[in-house]
Amino acid sequence: MKDSLITVSGGMDSITLLYDKRDEIALAVTYDYGSKHNRMELEYALHHCHALGIEHIVIPLDFVARYFKSSLLQGGDAIPECAYNDDNMKSTVVPFRNGIMLSIACGLAETHGLHKVLIANHSGDHAIYPDCREEFINAMSNAMSSGTYKNITISAPYTNISKSDIAKIGKRLGIDYSKTYSCYNGRTKHCGRCATCLERKESLRIAGIPDTTEYEDD
Amino acid sequence: MKDSLITVSGGMDSITLLYDKRDEIALAVTYDYGSKHNRMELEYALHHCHALGIEHIVIPLDFVARYFKSSLLQGGDAIPECAYNDDNMKSTVVPFRNGIMLSIACGLAETHGLHKVLIANHSGDHAIYPDCREEFINAMSNAMSSGTYKNITISAPYTNISKSDIAKIGKRLGIDYSKTYSCYNGRTKHCGRCATCLERKESLRIAGIPDTTEYEDD
Repeated sequence: MKDSLITVSGGMDSITLLYDKRDEIALAVTYDYGSKHNRMELEYALHHCHALGIEHIVIPLDFVARYFKSSLLQGGDAIPECAYNDDNMKSTVVPFRNGIMLSIACGLAETHGLHKVLIANHSGDHAIYPDCREEFINAMSNAMSSGTYKNITISAPYTNISKSDIAKIGKRLGIDYSKTYSCYNGRTKHCGRCATCLERKESLRIAGIPDTTEYEDD
Repeated sequence: MKDSLITVSGGMDSITLLYDKRDEIALAVTYDYGSKHNRMELEYALHHCHALGIEHIVIPLDFVARYFKSSLLQGGDAIPECAYNDDNMKSTVVPFRNGIMLSIACGLAETHGLHKVLIANHSGDHAIYPDCREEFINAMSNAMSSGTYKNITISAPYTNISKSDIAKIGKRLGIDYSKTYSCYNGRTKHCGRCATCLERKESLRIAGIPDTTEYEDD
């Protein structure tokens, strides 16, 4: 039964979830919140939704880059070159980003008569991003359920697995990860040095998937 | 201590809360989500924030009128002429509107180092709008707290009082309600027949405030 809406960026995680739950998905939504990498990711979100015949819309959130502060955003500070567990990765936090994306998704789901919102947060995000943790997802799901007629809830099946585990699911599903984008710097080629690039490389390696990504430092 | 952000529309309820909690408010936010009456309200939100010396920003949410369905929105069906408890007022629901407004407010509050988000939902809204009820406000406050570093929470002090009770608070504070806007039709004069106009008239009458509003049917 197609009763779900998915928030899909065009990165490895959300593209995996898109294929993983394709039979449940009636509508896919990508947010352009003014991050350095939104536009690069968007191309792949469109590509895969088109390939799967899933309706896709883009919601521009111009106010985020204008009023929020984060190195992830256009006009923000430089993206740190380090692993995700380093403290200065906190500069990449966009405050309550998942809360904002999920609440808009919830309103869209209610408009379309859908019952579930899918999101691909995973355990590697927990250390730095409070709005990727299980506690937040459960609380937000309760808020969505109590604030809607359809009692809409969140399904976040990757919350407690790693990006490598997600890549293993993608391998089984035959996903072409060269058609996904991860780099926080948002240039044509992946930088290969920021936390998401390091995590991308590691997850592909652990899952045993040849990494055909073009990195700037190759 | 000025540690709060307020969501203020320019209607009677949020303008009352603005004056009521003026000593706590560091930032006021109005959303232009494409409703028929947003622009009329906005003028008064600006007026009162300016009068109180409170910083004020407007967040445009163009996607709501484009992708959501509600008679409240520009391009939507006609606003019903009836009281709030009538079933066809459901056509004025903008799905999860308060969830969306609160989540953006939460991200802005975290960006500005604030701890609390103020909202002026009241008991008269409960019957029709699920995202105005105490259960939703509490669940959303939990979601915001768990999804932010500052553990931001919601303060909704009018949740369980009526619009007449709010008008009584406004009377005590000396608020000039002629400088607020309520009508869902969003024309220059209040229509005097929609649910919010009927509620406005009644609350001013019960609070013993002379109603100097110009209604179309006067």
